[in-house]
Amino acid sequence: MKKYLVEFIGTFFLVLTVGMTVIAPGAGALAPLAIGSALMIMVYAGGHVSGGHYNPAVTLAVWLRGRCAAADVPFYMGAQILGAWVAAAGVLCFKGHPVVTPLEIKLVPALIAELVGAFALCYVVLNVATAKATAGNSNYGLAIGFTVMTMAFALGGVSGGAFNPAVAVGITRMHLVDSMHLWLYFIANLGAGALAALVFKFVNPEDK
Amino acid sequence: MKKYLVEFIGTFFLVLTVGMTVIAPGAGALAPLAIGSALMIMVYAGGHVSGGHYNPAVTLAVWLRGRCAAADVPFYMGAQILGAWVAAAGVLCFKGHPVVTPLEIKLVPALIAELVGAFALCYVVLNVATAKATAGNSNYGLAIGFTVMTMAFALGGVSGGAFNPAVAVGITRMHLVDSMHLWLYFIANLGAGALAALVFKFVNPEDK
Amino acid sequence: MKKYLVEFIGTFFLVLTVGMTVIAPGAGALAPLAIGSALMIMVYAGGHVSGGHYNPAVTLAVWLRGRCAAADVPFYMGAQILGAWVAAAGVLCFKGHPVVTPLEIKLVPALIAELVGAFALCYVVLNVATAKATAGNSNYGLAIGFTVMTMAFALGGVSGGAFNPAVAVGITRMHLVDSMHLWLYFIANLGAGALAALVFKFVNPEDK
Amino acid sequence: MKKYLVEFIGTFFLVLTVGMTVIAPGAGALAPLAIGSALMIMVYAGGHVSGGHYNPAVTLAVWLRGRCAAADVPFYMGAQILGAWVAAAGVLCFKGHPVVTPLEIKLVPALIAELVGAFALCYVVLNVATAKATAGNSNYGLAIGFTVMTMAFALGGVSGGAFNPAVAVGITRMHLVDSMHLWLYFIANLGAGALAALVFKFVNPEDK
Repeated sequence: MKKYLVEFIGTFFLVLTVGMTVIAPGAGALAPLAIGSALMIMVYAGGHVSGGHYNPAVTLAVWLRGRCAAADVPFYMGAQILGAWVAAAGVLCFKGHPVVTPLEIKLVPALIAELVGAFALCYVVLNVATAKATAGNSNYGLAIGFTVMTMAFALGGVSGGAFNPAVAVGITRMHLVDSMHLWLYFIANLGAGALAALVFKFVNPEDK
Repeated sequence: MKKYLVEFIGTFFLVLTVGMTVIAPGAGALAPLAIGSALMIMVYAGGHVSGGHYNPAVTLAVWLRGRCAAADVPFYMGAQILGAWVAAAGVLCFKGHPVVTPLEIKLVPALIAELVGAFALCYVVLNVATAKATAGNSNYGLAIGFTVMTMAFALGGVSGGAFNPAVAVGITRMHLVDSMHLWLYFIANLGAGALAALVFKFVNPEDK
Repeated sequence: MKKYLVEFIGTFFLVLTVGMTVIAPGAGALAPLAIGSALMIMVYAGGHVSGGHYNPAVTLAVWLRGRCAAADVPFYMGAQILGAWVAAAGVLCFKGHPVVTPLEIKLVPALIAELVGAFALCYVVLNVATAKATAGNSNYGLAIGFTVMTMAFALGGVSGGAFNPAVAVGITRMHLVDSMHLWLYFIANLGAGALAALVFKFVNPEDK
Repeated sequence: MKKYLVEFIGTFFLVLTVGMTVIAPGAGALAPLAIGSALMIMVYAGGHVSGGHYNPAVTLAVWLRGRCAAADVPFYMGAQILGAWVAAAGVLCFKGHPVVTPLEIKLVPALIAELVGAFALCYVVLNVATAKATAGNSNYGLAIGFTVMTMAFALGGVSGGAFNPAVAVGITRMHLVDSMHLWLYFIANLGAGALAALVFKFVNPEDK
């Protein structure tokens, strides 16, 4: 139960930061720094309790890598999506139910961008937070959070830069992306999580 | 005595940075990066002496969690508020007693924003700087400082982004916020500190 | 084989970030933060497998310092250049084959800037990631990534700010720099790698 | 000798970054991030050889604290000032001997700003890099570098933001500050170093 609460809190603050900094008047060009840092601080705060996923694609990747119990997976994902939903509702209240123009999305580039960005995130998570060879480091949160920052700077304009199905629920709820595109994030991000788990096992063969 | 001096120094530099970067010509959109970094460096510099609170809400949360002696609490809070007051006076001198228009604040959103932001800060502090499971890490200052940066980017426009009653004293002294709103920060931030201590105990049940 | 895959992945994400953030509409003045962070996250993710070079000049320097097998050197460099090439092609697709005006380059200043910037990078890499006196630190990725960020802020306007022959292949492929200048990066960067190895041995005489 | 070379290299890159990012077209509002990061990377690269001072005020403070041999002090300061001088000359070449308007400086505020900023820097250095209670941490470079970034954001407009007599030599050489003000930096910064050593001894009484 405490693990699900930590996942709820972390995803809540991640999506709160997304909404408050992206919807005008937000943090402008600095929004990716705020968003990546929101993930970083929550990974450092909650990692020792729940692993600090805050992302169904990460939960899938960590489960495939063998560091998350199967019984936890649906509850993790549920807590993450619930946290994102509550945060999105909160943002709409804070902003006074703003008029937001959804990002125009081209399907194929957006699918590829979400696949590439979420692969980077899951690949970094598995290597810095679950590999035996990097155990005990103090940089896992910085690496994970700044992956989202970097990919948001690089690919945010193509796909909206979710790299996370729970964040995708949040940004469609806030009309930053049209809700008819929501499936795209689930397929691309979860696919990226599975691919990252495969690549991790290939490059860390002795690490079971 | 040395602990109170460290708390004074840290809060002084935090509020000095707030005033110098927020009052024009300051650091513009980058002010939250400077402010969060000011907290980060002072946490790294003073953590081994005083714990590096620099915030009455953090002192309350750490006391409730059982890592601050009751006898220290009033002196910590006094040193923090004194440091904030001196820094604010210094900023007004450096800036040549500037004409500052206070932020327009709506009471209920501001109360919620200060509650949410200060909860994030105290929740991060307790988990990265007082939990047994994260002992010995090198990231506590980065996590704590960048929580203030992130929340300032996300919520600064709603409430002024103090998340800290001592900072609230400083920003009302510098007229960035009307002094009739000062009570709001004390209630919301101290309430958030107490709530964070409760949540910490729930998610770290074996950590006394 | 797994080492070469890690080098491919890391250089791919580095050059993807360069192209997506530098070509308009990119990350504007914040591009160096994104680029340096891309290197940082990939060093943290892949360092325990391949050393996390992502740069032929770094591979040369690490080999001269005695921490990379000679047999690996050509495959590392090949994987890096291939990753850069694929990333550059991907950027051109994402951006819709944009019209890019190459940076105007003056030969001598550009040569010196690439020598100076790549020296800083290789000097930092050797000291934070291969010196016995700094073994076990958690800051190597931050130091290495932010060296590229710092040098890109300082010298990017002079030479394009590659500091890396693989990145040079990528930016000439994306027309950010005229391909007739490609030799310049190979000479300056590889020369800087050799010089950094010499300096490292001089300042760490007991470290074989 | 190797220690002096490391001090020369580090101060060279610090002042190179100052000049290249502050003189137009530089890094604009992001210059303090680049400058603080330049110090950070050089502290991480050279700390295990020379201590990574790159600043006569820091050398004074570390000597007073008992962690720098008296015989090294003049050579450290000489290497730092030489590195700054060479970097400033290099910047003037790269920039094509630019016309620079020196910052208008008011004496008393500038003296106080340099005293306050250099005190913060020396106080952080002594606590994160020389205190027994923080030995073995990986955050010393981040804390030290970002202190300069924070103080440059906060106080750069008042005094030019040197906090370092060697940097002061560099910025007067580049005409960013009028050379008739050079004495100001030596007095304020060295005084701040001495004050920081006193405060360090008071707050770390058991740490000889």
